[in-house]
Amino acid sequence: MRDLSNDRQWLAINSATVKAWSLEQLVEGCARAGISAIAPWRDIVQAAGVEKAGNLIRAQGLAVSCLCRGGMFPAADEPGRRAVLDDNRRAVDEAAAIGARCLVLIAGGLPKDSKDITGARQQVHDGLAALLPHARAAGVPLAIEPLHPMYAADRACVNTLAHASDLCDQLGAGLGIALDVYHVWWDPDLPRQIARAGSRIITYHVCDWLVPTRDVLLDRGMPGDGVIDLRGIRRMVEATGYAGHCDVEIFSAQDWWKREPSDVLRICLERHQTVV
Amino acid sequence: MRDLSNDRQWLAINSATVKAWSLEQLVEGCARAGISAIAPWRDIVQAAGVEKAGNLIRAQGLAVSCLCRGGMFPAADEPGRRAVLDDNRRAVDEAAAIGARCLVLIAGGLPKDSKDITGARQQVHDGLAALLPHARAAGVPLAIEPLHPMYAADRACVNTLAHASDLCDQLGAGLGIALDVYHVWWDPDLPRQIARAGSRIITYHVCDWLVPTRDVLLDRGMPGDGVIDLRGIRRMVEATGYAGHCDVEIFSAQDWWKREPSDVLRICLERHQTVV
Repeated sequence: MRDLSNDRQWLAINSATVKAWSLEQLVEGCARAGISAIAPWRDIVQAAGVEKAGNLIRAQGLAVSCLCRGGMFPAADEPGRRAVLDDNRRAVDEAAAIGARCLVLIAGGLPKDSKDITGARQQVHDGLAALLPHARAAGVPLAIEPLHPMYAADRACVNTLAHASDLCDQLGAGLGIALDVYHVWWDPDLPRQIARAGSRIITYHVCDWLVPTRDVLLDRGMPGDGVIDLRGIRRMVEATGYAGHCDVEIFSAQDWWKREPSDVLRICLERHQTVV
Repeated sequence: MRDLSNDRQWLAINSATVKAWSLEQLVEGCARAGISAIAPWRDIVQAAGVEKAGNLIRAQGLAVSCLCRGGMFPAADEPGRRAVLDDNRRAVDEAAAIGARCLVLIAGGLPKDSKDITGARQQVHDGLAALLPHARAAGVPLAIEPLHPMYAADRACVNTLAHASDLCDQLGAGLGIALDVYHVWWDPDLPRQIARAGSRIITYHVCDWLVPTRDVLLDRGMPGDGVIDLRGIRRMVEATGYAGHCDVEIFSAQDWWKREPSDVLRICLERHQTVV
């Protein structure tokens, strides 16, 4: 297991953690804090302009651990599915343009008025299969992210690491896994499934599960403030050979999003070195 | 699969669904509505007096599909664990006194300041093992209820049907499973796990998953108002041989708890006959 106690190299700041910042502010803020990697969401990349974003990131010598996010495959009809696929191809191009090491995808949930989660899961499989040729040609690995089961209906119907590995087995080269502790920490099968996922884990995200959790979506905690055994999970992930970034991604409407982003960065770095 | 379209026999009203009612009111309300089974929580049984509660239920000829609930096994220290075990033995006695067909147990979450979910799960195993002799002697089947993973930290660290079946395998006669669609509907392995659980499913609870879900705990939906494929799951459960009650249990602070309980009962019956 890597010693991160003096590390600044393997911390990546996800733009969702400092939601108030533009890409320009994120790049400058990380440079000021001596942080060398970012994980932007598409909104701030598009707002900056994709080409300009790439230039800015390269000029600062920042690594891009991943681009967040594409996916959301299930749709109610064929035009809907085509629109999703087109948008995902653009996301692949954006990831390539900014040098992201992968494109994170979340599955998407049930189409409107549907109760057919099995059918939605088939659509995810088929959408990934349709997207993969473009991603392979662009040299952008796709990273399917299993989301917590509480998002199964409206955000992502891939809810376990086992399911994500199954998709990788079925779809082959070019598809990997984004593992976020928030979504999988509860899984009684986690040790076995991390070992099984192995080198398919291509990006690793951290935050914490707060008790109580006051909001289904926007009440994630800073690493160390919740109940997740972060060291235990990182040990298992690194035992697979993972040696990439730890991406701090925190959705927190009532707490961290209200703070000064530079302070948030400082605390992310401190927690990265002490509890991640 | 049973035809419930004219059924009044296999609907059980969980007291959490009509939270404003005492046991006396629940018994009278069900009698008025022609509903012949209830699933009370311990609070209203204790408030009525356990012996009196049993007499009242027997006088009305009501079936008691289950008593909710015991469990909550993990504790920070040995005195804490002893207190939990004592309370669970009382719950078994209460279930016997009111003729409940089983006692529902939820696992409990992490002890205060703990991040050791594996340790908490071991405590659940050990707590069940310690409780079982008393339950067997009293003739009260225990029903461990896997809760949705979003409750892993603070309510129940048994979060999958697979885990519940594992516990049954390990602990033997006297332990079964309470299956609530709300907690397991998202599981990609659900068909296989229901078949595996088989006759260990001894009580079956229904409600629905709303989109959006506005509260982690208290925003469950009336059957039919959400995205769960209720018929599909009941078909699988009945294929195991299950022929007991469908217990409607809805926690709903902002909607159903604000309505007139008699109206809620009427709608439960209607949904039981049309969508469950």
